[in-house]
Amino acid sequence: MVGLDPRVEQLPEPVVAAHGPLDLERRAAACRLFCQGVIDVVAPLVPVVKPQAAFFEQLGAPGMVALAEVIHYAATKGLLVVLDGKRNDIGSTAEAYAAGILGPEGQSPWAADALTVSPYLGGDSLEPFVTVARKRAAGVFVLVKTSNPGGGMFQDLVCDGRPLYQYVAAEVERLTADTRANCGYGAVGAVVGATYPDQLAELRAAMPHAWLLVPGYGAQGAGAADVAGAFDARGLGAVVNNSRGILFAHARTPYAEKYGPARWQEAVEAATRDMIGQLRAATPAGKLPSPAA
Amino acid sequence: MVGLDPRVEQLPEPVVAAHGPLDLERRAAACRLFCQGVIDVVAPLVPVVKPQAAFFEQLGAPGMVALAEVIHYAATKGLLVVLDGKRNDIGSTAEAYAAGILGPEGQSPWAADALTVSPYLGGDSLEPFVTVARKRAAGVFVLVKTSNPGGGMFQDLVCDGRPLYQYVAAEVERLTADTRANCGYGAVGAVVGATYPDQLAELRAAMPHAWLLVPGYGAQGAGAADVAGAFDARGLGAVVNNSRGILFAHARTPYAEKYGPARWQEAVEAATRDMIGQLRAATPAGKLPSPAA
Repeated sequence: MVGLDPRVEQLPEPVVAAHGPLDLERRAAACRLFCQGVIDVVAPLVPVVKPQAAFFEQLGAPGMVALAEVIHYAATKGLLVVLDGKRNDIGSTAEAYAAGILGPEGQSPWAADALTVSPYLGGDSLEPFVTVARKRAAGVFVLVKTSNPGGGMFQDLVCDGRPLYQYVAAEVERLTADTRANCGYGAVGAVVGATYPDQLAELRAAMPHAWLLVPGYGAQGAGAADVAGAFDARGLGAVVNNSRGILFAHARTPYAEKYGPARWQEAVEAATRDMIGQLRAATPAGKLPSPAA
Repeated sequence: MVGLDPRVEQLPEPVVAAHGPLDLERRAAACRLFCQGVIDVVAPLVPVVKPQAAFFEQLGAPGMVALAEVIHYAATKGLLVVLDGKRNDIGSTAEAYAAGILGPEGQSPWAADALTVSPYLGGDSLEPFVTVARKRAAGVFVLVKTSNPGGGMFQDLVCDGRPLYQYVAAEVERLTADTRANCGYGAVGAVVGATYPDQLAELRAAMPHAWLLVPGYGAQGAGAADVAGAFDARGLGAVVNNSRGILFAHARTPYAEKYGPARWQEAVEAATRDMIGQLRAATPAGKLPSPAA
């Protein structure tokens, strides 16, 4: 999975230059152009992209227009789209998010294939998303164990012998029950940070029917060996995300020296191919046939 | 506080009729017109409105354009705006939300005065919002105890003798520390549902420097007596929200009989005045001078 985090201040100089002085509309246009350029490169290589809503929302309404265009563009290139919005609310309001973001083609203006959601409001706030996802063969990824340094402040609190994140994991596993496909995995997954390798394996075991969306690879410090525990023995069950390490490879070692800003798309391709190679070498995903083969 | 939840299917018939067949653009226009009509009525009566992001986001990019217009319109009418987005993410992404939604006038495309945020990611995910809020005299409301029936699934889990929501409350109180104004309250508040009156008083005591944003009044079943515990002895410290009970008063007892859809704005005014009267009669807010006096 390639995360689309178009941080304006880090965009390659040629992308920014194409849009002149950066007012809000032009910044949104630069982000759209950049994401479309990334999609062009990665569409033959990976199955899914993850636009981060915050970096579009930061640009106001023009940013949200760009987000809609990026989602649509990714879909036309055959990619699945996970919108990383970490949305949620009480029941009837959660229904509005679910219908708008995941609803059926032609009825949902965003038409993402999956959405990340936050669990603090409890199971009844998650169910509207699961209901819509089942109807439309879409997906929901619930935050369970996040990759940030302070993620443990509440997630690791121990309640009756078990940390909070284990309770959330149990609810995620329960929600998969009526949604499982032949592969064994359901429409409900969990976000589990790669920065906690031991807990990845523990949570893989606790949620045998939930896809794990694994952020933290690359810029946040985790490598391929750290995420191995997220996969099952067949090499299925995990989607590993890399955002900054791919998007801004043109400015990062070892790609900056070879490509630089002018050849940023080649840097994106090299970083993506390297990540795929690393995951194949160091995780059970290496057992899977290559899509290109 | 009047919550702006423009549920398209519940809008008064005259508002919908003005926009012809309801494609996405027209539905967004109807929501904008409706919210502006509500703002016209309530601006002289209440200090703050709370647009619910989900009902705008449900309408795609046109909905987000409408949301920006509604926030701007409310500001021109002298209202404070709390955007109810329940946003959050890891640190650098939280910074993007904070800058975009709460950043200083002219630099923030949304320019809301406060934002609701979700605490599951921990204290380091809350701090970027507090930092931006302090700089700009804006506010942050952290979910502590939500009003939905299933809110207790995780929030009430007992960790070392105290429920999870008390840990979140302690973090909210800590975050107010460097932000307190002369009134004693800071830039960081807490969302505490009116549907749990006992816990409102308990949380008022646990967070003596945090504003409480109290949803659940009206359509969700709580009345004025239920929210009394959210106020301090001076009648300060709480902001009580009513959304559906005011917005759709034209279709609800006792206003439907008297006003109906054609006179929906009069129904909004009557319901707002009644709520103010009920809060004055049954809570310490009655000690405050009337703004109209």
